[in-house]
Amino acid sequence: MRCQICRGKASVEVRQHHAAFCPLCFVQYFLKQVKRNIQAHKMFSSSEPLLLVVSGGKDSLSLWDALLHLGYNVTALHLDLGIPGYSDRSRDACSAFATEKGADLRIISVKEEFGVSIPELAKRTRRVPCAVCGRVKRYLFNRYAVEGGFTTVVTGHNLDDEVAALLGNLLHWQTGYLARQHPHLPSTHPKLAKRVKPLYTLTERECLAYALIQRIPFLAEECPHAEGATTILYKEALNHIEEASPGTKLAFMKGFLKHKDIFRVVEEDVKLRECTLCGQVTTEGICAICRLRERAGAVVQG
Amino acid sequence: MRCQICRGKASVEVRQHHAAFCPLCFVQYFLKQVKRNIQAHKMFSSSEPLLLVVSGGKDSLSLWDALLHLGYNVTALHLDLGIPGYSDRSRDACSAFATEKGADLRIISVKEEFGVSIPELAKRTRRVPCAVCGRVKRYLFNRYAVEGGFTTVVTGHNLDDEVAALLGNLLHWQTGYLARQHPHLPSTHPKLAKRVKPLYTLTERECLAYALIQRIPFLAEECPHAEGATTILYKEALNHIEEASPGTKLAFMKGFLKHKDIFRVVEEDVKLRECTLCGQVTTEGICAICRLRERAGAVVQG
Repeated sequence: MRCQICRGKASVEVRQHHAAFCPLCFVQYFLKQVKRNIQAHKMFSSSEPLLLVVSGGKDSLSLWDALLHLGYNVTALHLDLGIPGYSDRSRDACSAFATEKGADLRIISVKEEFGVSIPELAKRTRRVPCAVCGRVKRYLFNRYAVEGGFTTVVTGHNLDDEVAALLGNLLHWQTGYLARQHPHLPSTHPKLAKRVKPLYTLTERECLAYALIQRIPFLAEECPHAEGATTILYKEALNHIEEASPGTKLAFMKGFLKHKDIFRVVEEDVKLRECTLCGQVTTEGICAICRLRERAGAVVQG
Repeated sequence: MRCQICRGKASVEVRQHHAAFCPLCFVQYFLKQVKRNIQAHKMFSSSEPLLLVVSGGKDSLSLWDALLHLGYNVTALHLDLGIPGYSDRSRDACSAFATEKGADLRIISVKEEFGVSIPELAKRTRRVPCAVCGRVKRYLFNRYAVEGGFTTVVTGHNLDDEVAALLGNLLHWQTGYLARQHPHLPSTHPKLAKRVKPLYTLTERECLAYALIQRIPFLAEECPHAEGATTILYKEALNHIEEASPGTKLAFMKGFLKHKDIFRVVEEDVKLRECTLCGQVTTEGICAICRLRERAGAVVQG
């Protein structure tokens, strides 16, 4: 197999594009894809202050590396979830990368913000950890961005993440979620940062290849709470199809974006207001996070 | 495990409904589901002359058995595809059932209608057999129904068939197919019979259980051309999800039917007219079947 750019020995096959690259040309291909996604969806300009959310895994650290290479104005934010062992190793991976690159990393913790860790919060509210965690992350990342003067929250969701979410939303006909699924969600309120996903066309495998070639010290370990999550099930199902029919995932995603206006017709107008307790943006009187806090407190007292 | 109706020993588990039945009560459950689907979608009345398409497999023969039990006015039609061995065994299964039940079975053959069998037609037109076969079947079944005074073409498509088609249409955003996918497609032209699928909520496994309990002499063999078909791939992917999350397929199908009007907005008005060569209904000047015939002839001459 020859690299389709330099004709040297290829070592990375990108089946969805029927392409193969040598390590160096693959890095160029990856950076070009990231830049193309940013520009095609007008995600952000090169001077805008970006807040990149990093977990310490291959996707977010690869994106961090790519954004630095491409010269964007990026600050990383890591959230310590308080999961014994796993959270320490995640934080260490982010710190190691920041030190190596001399890059700007901020760290906040769920325990400092909420008084309890994610596992404890899930236990107290009798919710699935992943559901609580997703909600808390969206809330804290947005608040940190808005308060810190960042225009944009950037996340490392890759193509596999996006098509798994898409499949889940379609299997259950979550038309509201479908109407809001997009690699670029603009800000619709002064207290709401724009949210973008520059890796949305790149597979998990491509992000892994980039991280390995660039010798990024990422954490390979999955979150211990992720096991058995439906997302993994949807990824496995889609991998089964992709294996026999390469390019299906990307066509699925691109076709959805082309046709997604059809979901707008069923989506009611969502009115945004400020939470009466914390002042953050919500569609209800009291935001989901304040209700979660109340619930956690009530259970403790009860 | 106890039968949820008679409390006797259950031997058939229906995981999508968290239910289990003894063989006799399962048969009653199956018949009730078929009847409910027919009535809920106003598919046909008990006196209407129905043309049921039978392949000799578990689905179509189970449906034939069910429609006879429920007292519908059903005539079966089997199409001999001319696939060596497989087609003989398929025809024999249909004939055995008809003889046993004293039921009305008509048999036509692709070779008599087109001069060549399905494999030969696929070869001559350089098309995938499944694509040619599907087209030929729809054409011949409709023509036979309309010319014979049958109001309705009934097919044995089960839930697995329908969700596999739905997933395929969504993965490739075939909005035209999505707009037309429904268990009851009404007639929109005097030369077009109504098409219905009374088994659309029943899984392949449930149809198999019904056929086994009722001792229906079905052909268990798959069509030799089906191997590697994308439909099988989609079924495997959906089975993987259903295994961990029973009821997903049914929810996927029902959610789609609830929301399917959203696909109508993107679907252009399709104007039906009569083929200038054969007089059958088409959306173009010459119908797909006459073009297929021409192509087959041209290749032979060429």
